[in-house]
Amino acid sequence: MTLVDSALAGDRLALSRLLTQVENDTAEGRAALDSLFPHTGQAHLIGVTGAPGTGKSSLVNQLALHYRRQTTKRVAILAVDPSSPFTGGALLGDRVRMRDLSGDADVFIRSMATRGTLGGLAHATAAMSQVFDAAGYEIVFIETVGAGQAEVDIARLAHTTLVVEAPGFGDDIQAIKAGILEIADILVVNKADQPGVENTERALRGMLELAHPVRRVFQHHGKVEIVDAPGKSSDNLWIPPILRTIATQATGFGELAEAIARHREYLRQSGDWSRRERARLEREVDMLIQETLASQFRAAIQASYYDEVLGKVFAHQLSPWEAVKALLNGRQA
Amino acid sequence: MTLVDSALAGDRLALSRLLTQVENDTAEGRAALDSLFPHTGQAHLIGVTGAPGTGKSSLVNQLALHYRRQTTKRVAILAVDPSSPFTGGALLGDRVRMRDLSGDADVFIRSMATRGTLGGLAHATAAMSQVFDAAGYEIVFIETVGAGQAEVDIARLAHTTLVVEAPGFGDDIQAIKAGILEIADILVVNKADQPGVENTERALRGMLELAHPVRRVFQHHGKVEIVDAPGKSSDNLWIPPILRTIATQATGFGELAEAIARHREYLRQSGDWSRRERARLEREVDMLIQETLASQFRAAIQASYYDEVLGKVFAHQLSPWEAVKALLNGRQA
Repeated sequence: MTLVDSALAGDRLALSRLLTQVENDTAEGRAALDSLFPHTGQAHLIGVTGAPGTGKSSLVNQLALHYRRQTTKRVAILAVDPSSPFTGGALLGDRVRMRDLSGDADVFIRSMATRGTLGGLAHATAAMSQVFDAAGYEIVFIETVGAGQAEVDIARLAHTTLVVEAPGFGDDIQAIKAGILEIADILVVNKADQPGVENTERALRGMLELAHPVRRVFQHHGKVEIVDAPGKSSDNLWIPPILRTIATQATGFGELAEAIARHREYLRQSGDWSRRERARLEREVDMLIQETLASQFRAAIQASYYDEVLGKVFAHQLSPWEAVKALLNGRQA
Repeated sequence: MTLVDSALAGDRLALSRLLTQVENDTAEGRAALDSLFPHTGQAHLIGVTGAPGTGKSSLVNQLALHYRRQTTKRVAILAVDPSSPFTGGALLGDRVRMRDLSGDADVFIRSMATRGTLGGLAHATAAMSQVFDAAGYEIVFIETVGAGQAEVDIARLAHTTLVVEAPGFGDDIQAIKAGILEIADILVVNKADQPGVENTERALRGMLELAHPVRRVFQHHGKVEIVDAPGKSSDNLWIPPILRTIATQATGFGELAEAIARHREYLRQSGDWSRRERARLEREVDMLIQETLASQFRAAIQASYYDEVLGKVFAHQLSPWEAVKALLNGRQA
């Protein structure tokens, strides 16, 4: 029995080994992805992001427990930690999770450390999600720390993206980055038993209206009169709800799971589910083509020649276009 | 006399035509860039960005007038407007500028509309800056509207980046995007005669410390004890000053010009000037290589075949990697 067959048959150790191969982008990992791919396309990918300190990991934990208690769905958690001086708690978080969820054979938790470029991280996350999907995990959480470009890229993989905030975190609004708000399908104010929850909610609502002016029109006039901003689609018809949770008391997770189910239903009804899938797969193919062409190019050119040509550009002896021509000719020679 | 020779000799009409060719990325434009390139590397590229309504264009206007009155430097302004429902005032802005600056043969103003992809816009901006640089404009302003990824990409071209805010603009802090703050070398609170200027300054200072925790250490302890965040360099030794201006009254521009001169001096002293130049040129070469490889690939493949392969990926019959292999083989056939 191959590793892939064992993983598909439910062997957790085989799944774990497979994930490592895929994460490391080995030849075996790529071959495994090829044979797993026909089995993918069933999972609901749920991205969860937010600043450190918002209780994001506990929230994912509680949501996973909720799904396991209320449904028969199998749940995977992929925790992606771009390296940061603030994320020392990842290991401890994993241990706490283990205590709550480790007895459950239908829950699989995997952490991924930063590895190589940010692009590589997004790529590995996509590939590992496909492994979980093929292995029959119907809910796949993709949890990221922080609010930078890496998180935005990773969130674009998800069908539904949760952005988590907490009251009194720093200066409230400072912790929110507009780029992240733009990708939020559902906003969660966690730690909702702490003072300042109304302020946080109000700030979120204000920023949400700023980020999606189109939605404001829709929301305030109560009818579907959409003036599409450039690059916006019928997505605009989904108004991101703002929900409160208290992860430490397991409060608010029924409502949160309902909102996620509503968003899934919205994606299915509107056709956005398959549009997002297709856009994601096309992006993946284009990215792999670019990567392959670039690595073929690098393999065909001497590093010393590349440095020599670039040095001439720095010295203003060759223009960038002339350098490209020289490099492409150097490749053929 | 060629167009390039005429432009280098100071012929404004020739320069204008050359800019159009370069903007449209024609064969003539590329050839012109090749012959202009040895003349580049002298200009100080100053990026100016900020939300609409902050008075950014008037500020650039006043700063240009200041340079013309106080120095012998020739000034070019490249105004880049990514399309947006909020930027209807661009043309009017140009007309107001003309009245102030059009009598001056050593000032050249050029607007650029959105054209093609955002990547294309950044590329065209880089190329047009090189034309101004070669034509002997010692100060080149690159003005962008808004605060999205496009502006960040364009700002990366500049040696010095000004981020402009204004008091009472929306909810003050809402107008500031963290991604933009991270690229600011100098922060300007324009319209400083309006109420709320202290609040805006305080918010900026807070977000600045959040965006550059390393700088906070430096600033508060008063000694050079830098714990570099990942990806940060000796850049951290520059603490972005926050300055006040009133563009409509021409107030604060001496101080602003001084801060710009200090930043230029800092860049020269620290070696960051040439580091930024080199990074910029290497990025440009890599971008042109990727672009060329991708367009060679597209030219060598049938669109119908590409669609067919992608359709099989959507149907989960081919994995992304298998699709890439099929496309690369299809290219060779």
